Amino acid sequence: MGKVCLEGVGKFNHHYPAVAAVVTARVEEKANAMAAAWHSCLSFEPPLYGVAISPKRFSHDLVLEAGEFGVNFLPFDKAGMIAAVGGSTGREVDKFEAFKIAEEKLVSTSVPILAEAYAAYECKLVSHHTFGDHTWFVGQILRVHLLEEALTEEGVLNLERVTPALYLGADLYLGPGPESIRRLDRAVYGEVS
Amino acid sequence: MGKVCLEGVGKFNHHYPAVAAVVTARVEEKANAMAAAWHSCLSFEPPLYGVAISPKRFSHDLVLEAGEFGVNFLPFDKAGMIAAVGGSTGREVDKFEAFKIAEEKLVSTSVPILAEAYAAYECKLVSHHTFGDHTWFVGQILRVHLLEEALTEEGVLNLERVTPALYLGADLYLGPGPESIRRLDRAVYGEVS
Repeated sequence: MGKVCLEGVGKFNHHYPAVAAVVTARVEEKANAMAAAWHSCLSFEPPLYGVAISPKRFSHDLVLEAGEFGVNFLPFDKAGMIAAVGGSTGREVDKFEAFKIAEEKLVSTSVPILAEAYAAYECKLVSHHTFGDHTWFVGQILRVHLLEEALTEEGVLNLERVTPALYLGADLYLGPGPESIRRLDRAVYGEVS
Repeated sequence: MGKVCLEGVGKFNHHYPAVAAVVTARVEEKANAMAAAWHSCLSFEPPLYGVAISPKRFSHDLVLEAGEFGVNFLPFDKAGMIAAVGGSTGREVDKFEAFKIAEEKLVSTSVPILAEAYAAYECKLVSHHTFGDHTWFVGQILRVHLLEEALTEEGVLNLERVTPALYLGADLYLGPGPESIRRLDRAVYGEVS
């Protein structure tokens, strides 16, 4: 076996694993949550975060209408909740009720923040862009909701205490443990002798 | 300990871990490679991929000038190469020479594709957007370079054979193993009884 080069791209999963986020929004009485594996940090200052949502999704227009959205990060042992919101539609069910999803109370926007999230971003929609068959929603992070013990002193996820849910494609999830962590100081590695 | 809500966002790492990609570009004799943890798939059809690059980076203008870029995914045992290109600048060194980075030969654009990558996307720059302090480069994937054994039959990464390099922030890398994989069928989980 060796290297191959594919011209037809198809449904490509080579860029996974990625944190399986849950994107949330609410307009009046209508709240929804969806699974999203296409998302990225975009800027430190101002703090911006991007999420790709298909126009087919119920959440697409809900986020547009709300002008706000949440990005929730759930632990691996709640991956079933991610699969549940990913496998149902807000057009037919109230997912919060159907899957008994609890919300944080201390939220200052309309955005539902999931009580089970170890971290979540409350975002104000700044702009949206059509990139192919998805819309890219750019949000400014207004507030970070955080389980205090989720971070180490240097501000990264503490994998001894929190196991993030990663998505691999094809309904496969994994929870990386702390065993394999290595520190590679970029200043040392990037030094040219 | 419990939940906290932060208004000042700072240098936030809550959204990690993410695959530590290496973004590459070439204009004539000048090639460069940089580490990038802010990237996302954007569209299936056409296949689009996005990468955030700070205007401070040497690669920023190089990608603009080239009109092409590569997104390379390296295995965990090559994380040192990611840290090396992340800790040096193309303004001062030829990273390919300095770190002995080999390139694939079968490439039809100007884009350097790393021989050590288990998968890589050869992209044509479609558009770029200023989002805060970074530029978001949108590329159409023209070709996928792939180590044949890297994927399972259903087209997801085979973690028995390939260990992707994930970035956690603060120069920390990890390589998730296959032990914790679980299949959660969204149709089953999303069913409301």
